Amino acid sequence: MSKPTLYTCLSPSLLHLYDVRDSIVVVIDILRATSTIATVLYNGAKAVIPVDSVEKCIQIGKEQQYITAGERDGKIAPGLQYGNSSFEYPRQFIEGKTLVLTTTNGTKLLHMALANGATEIVTGSFLNLSAICDHLVAQEQNVVLACAAWKDKVNLEDTLFAGAVVSNIKEQFHINCDSSHMAATLYNTGKEDLYEFLKANDASHYHRLTNFGLEKDIRHCLTADLANILPYYKNEALTVYNGLY
Amino acid sequence: MSKPTLYTCLSPSLLHLYDVRDSIVVVIDILRATSTIATVLYNGAKAVIPVDSVEKCIQIGKEQQYITAGERDGKIAPGLQYGNSSFEYPRQFIEGKTLVLTTTNGTKLLHMALANGATEIVTGSFLNLSAICDHLVAQEQNVVLACAAWKDKVNLEDTLFAGAVVSNIKEQFHINCDSSHMAATLYNTGKEDLYEFLKANDASHYHRLTNFGLEKDIRHCLTADLANILPYYKNEALTVYNGLY
Repeated sequence: MSKPTLYTCLSPSLLHLYDVRDSIVVVIDILRATSTIATVLYNGAKAVIPVDSVEKCIQIGKEQQYITAGERDGKIAPGLQYGNSSFEYPRQFIEGKTLVLTTTNGTKLLHMALANGATEIVTGSFLNLSAICDHLVAQEQNVVLACAAWKDKVNLEDTLFAGAVVSNIKEQFHINCDSSHMAATLYNTGKEDLYEFLKANDASHYHRLTNFGLEKDIRHCLTADLANILPYYKNEALTVYNGLY
Repeated sequence: MSKPTLYTCLSPSLLHLYDVRDSIVVVIDILRATSTIATVLYNGAKAVIPVDSVEKCIQIGKEQQYITAGERDGKIAPGLQYGNSSFEYPRQFIEGKTLVLTTTNGTKLLHMALANGATEIVTGSFLNLSAICDHLVAQEQNVVLACAAWKDKVNLEDTLFAGAVVSNIKEQFHINCDSSHMAATLYNTGKEDLYEFLKANDASHYHRLTNFGLEKDIRHCLTADLANILPYYKNEALTVYNGLY
């Protein structure tokens, strides 16, 4: 039997080049949307609803009595309750609750993948790296690793996560995709200390967040398997995948 | 005085993200359009006219008695005289002549940069790496390194060349661009043997050309400064830059 294919899409502006209709799409937004999503669900939240605007976030939060969260320019957006840091969502706070999260890059990409007819959408971060890899290997379907990037410009941290996945599961897939191999090579070059690698590569998002004093957050988002569940998108919400559709 | 900026655009599909209006755009299509262009001009051709279709190539060739060249699927396109290998253009053949060259990825990108209002367009390849770097440093203008990619999908060899340029001239520029740093890191990882690096990374274009028996060609296209001139685009033709506009 031939192996399923795996592609890495480095920016939402390149998504049209990939046929996502028969694929599992892994949405990747390491700093910090998909890291926050993994943490919140790992800590027992019922669901995370990703929305693309602060207005929609406020509206759904009000209507449903959900917790609202989201940042603009590194600060909690006006009108919302919480931000985009994993440390804001310990189990004792978030367990059993639903979070409406507004992000820019990640949410846009998720909706694009949906509009393009992706078979299945999950979200990936270093915090749930093993869960993603195990799932992709188990499903035996075509995969597109889709990086949210930063305003459509390719970024290092999302690429590194794609590279980590490729590095772990490449034997199980047919990979005719330079972006995937480049990502894996970058990951293998930097994996001993991803934080230092971001710093040494002068990563733009590293700078942006470091300026906001978020070093601890960045280090957390680069650590494997601290929130090792699989966020699965269905009916406009992300919930923990339980093996049933 | 603040340094000029440098960005790397990994695919024509991302070009809209970069402001090329005040920039020198370096068009990069290593395998093999911009390598062929450097060779042909280095060997004394009067000019290279890049066109986007075989039909246009045949038409201009007939009207002007120019030499026609171009490939589709690794073979000389029907109706044209020559292909896309540097070895077809020794000095004794090409000196004093004009070549009309049809390429897909590189020509498209060049015309996009032109339409977007680039200040200046030059073409880069490993064969003229030093000429490109020297020129960019001397001009002290903003730079966009624009990879032609393969049908808009990011490719390794164009990225590696961008990385070589970044690696050489980064001190002279302000680089807030993850693609540039990623490219430089990949280049520095692979530079001891770029051919083996393409092979080890399972680069798709390496495969494509190796299947056509073009290993010698690929190795040639990865060698620095064998045709160290600066192809400069003006009035629909590429000629050797002589310091005057």
